[in-house]
Amino acid sequence: MTVMTRDAPEALLREASETINPSPAPGAQSEAKAKTKSLVIIAESGDLEKTWATTILASTAAASGMEVSIFFTFWGFFPLVRPEKRITGQVWMQKMLSLMNRPGIDHLKLSRLNFMGLGPWMMKRLARKHGVASPGELLAMAQAMGVKLLPCQMSMDMLGFTPEDLIDGLEEPVGAATVLEMIASGTPALFI
Amino acid sequence: MTVMTRDAPEALLREASETINPSPAPGAQSEAKAKTKSLVIIAESGDLEKTWATTILASTAAASGMEVSIFFTFWGFFPLVRPEKRITGQVWMQKMLSLMNRPGIDHLKLSRLNFMGLGPWMMKRLARKHGVASPGELLAMAQAMGVKLLPCQMSMDMLGFTPEDLIDGLEEPVGAATVLEMIASGTPALFI
Amino acid sequence: MTVMTRDAPEALLREASETINPSPAPGAQSEAKAKTKSLVIIAESGDLEKTWATTILASTAAASGMEVSIFFTFWGFFPLVRPEKRITGQVWMQKMLSLMNRPGIDHLKLSRLNFMGLGPWMMKRLARKHGVASPGELLAMAQAMGVKLLPCQMSMDMLGFTPEDLIDGLEEPVGAATVLEMIASGTPALFI
Repeated sequence: MTVMTRDAPEALLREASETINPSPAPGAQSEAKAKTKSLVIIAESGDLEKTWATTILASTAAASGMEVSIFFTFWGFFPLVRPEKRITGQVWMQKMLSLMNRPGIDHLKLSRLNFMGLGPWMMKRLARKHGVASPGELLAMAQAMGVKLLPCQMSMDMLGFTPEDLIDGLEEPVGAATVLEMIASGTPALFI
Repeated sequence: MTVMTRDAPEALLREASETINPSPAPGAQSEAKAKTKSLVIIAESGDLEKTWATTILASTAAASGMEVSIFFTFWGFFPLVRPEKRITGQVWMQKMLSLMNRPGIDHLKLSRLNFMGLGPWMMKRLARKHGVASPGELLAMAQAMGVKLLPCQMSMDMLGFTPEDLIDGLEEPVGAATVLEMIASGTPALFI
Repeated sequence: MTVMTRDAPEALLREASETINPSPAPGAQSEAKAKTKSLVIIAESGDLEKTWATTILASTAAASGMEVSIFFTFWGFFPLVRPEKRITGQVWMQKMLSLMNRPGIDHLKLSRLNFMGLGPWMMKRLARKHGVASPGELLAMAQAMGVKLLPCQMSMDMLGFTPEDLIDGLEEPVGAATVLEMIASGTPALFI
């Protein structure tokens, strides 16, 4: 089963790569490189299904050679917390938020049919059975393929996360202006 | 009343067409055709109001001559099921999901103020009174105007839908790579 | 504290401005003006956190010189109602909707952890402590910087809002076709 979830995404990504870059003509390499396609995802919701969409799109795009960035903000910031971290925050309001809204990409809730975790458990079982990797596995794959993970500075301050709370390999925290700069220079953006 | 809901969208779409393509100069036809505008909507949520937004944007864009595709995925996949289908899925987990989250575009729930169906009933009454077609009517219009409806292959597998479960006139199921290819070649995308 | 929330956004916006328009070369002014960057946000959800995202992105983009429009529709329309207005609508269904879903940008609910208003109260306290302006303050700033606020005509009709219900300084109500026209002519769009 583990083998299945490992293999399937690779097949998916190989297919993605072939679809988006179909047989580049010889000599076209340098030109293709010059105008590398890019994508930025604003991950705001942090629901299980939305985080799945974010990580599937990001890893598939990266596999096809696109330059991908994800900006993690508000509820969408919580998946960046290390799974073993239970409570985060400096003041009681921040601690209570992390208590009520458990951080970590392995603990996400569905926006509907959550049923105290039964919904997510069923979705993850169905996913595994059909060779779809979990959001956590997809995020790791995305990182390995060069997707840039940008934590939102404002969310980090407001919600009281420290760098020690967060998974490895993140970029420096940035603000909305950084995302808008990408959009202004032609990078397509999805708000998820 | 039925007349009203039939007439009104047509007026809306005629207006849309005039707004987006204002009086094309003679001879500009071929040039306009060469760079036809396009749009792709990733329909992920499946709420009544979000599905309304998707179908209004898609039909209005198509009426104005844009090439529109909708990619139906996750909760957004359920509106593609035939309204008369009550239970879908092969295994008990998939059946239970369709039992708890009734499929079909006539059975969508509001993301807030649903109140066991009272909210959607009120919204649909208000819509009819003001000449706004239902999501189902708008989707049929969109199809008639050439909007391409793309079912997500992964959602179909995971949630256990069969081709017989689905409404007529859909394209072949595709993956996220197909949508990303559109984005990479300059098609604006909305994640709804 | 008021000083804090007033100062901080200004600092944010100044930074934004510098990031997006880094040291324009002399003589490049006219060229830059010719291709002013633009952005349109479709504000559909009306949750506290989504309205925050909308107003932060809009005001930051405007501060950097982008031409920004926000199209307020469905639940996203409610923040345009004057805060002192309690009940809106002409018929009982519309009145009931405004009763259950209190309009006005100072009365928004979180999509999760709302807890009868405790969640929003905590979020706003944390925001103030960290120098983040409220959605209402950010919207006023956005207006002052020239962001165009477009009410959705269809939402206004369906939900029974009158011009007297709404805050000052809005554009004339428009339809989805206006937003699609912007997208068709190259304006990047975010659906929030």
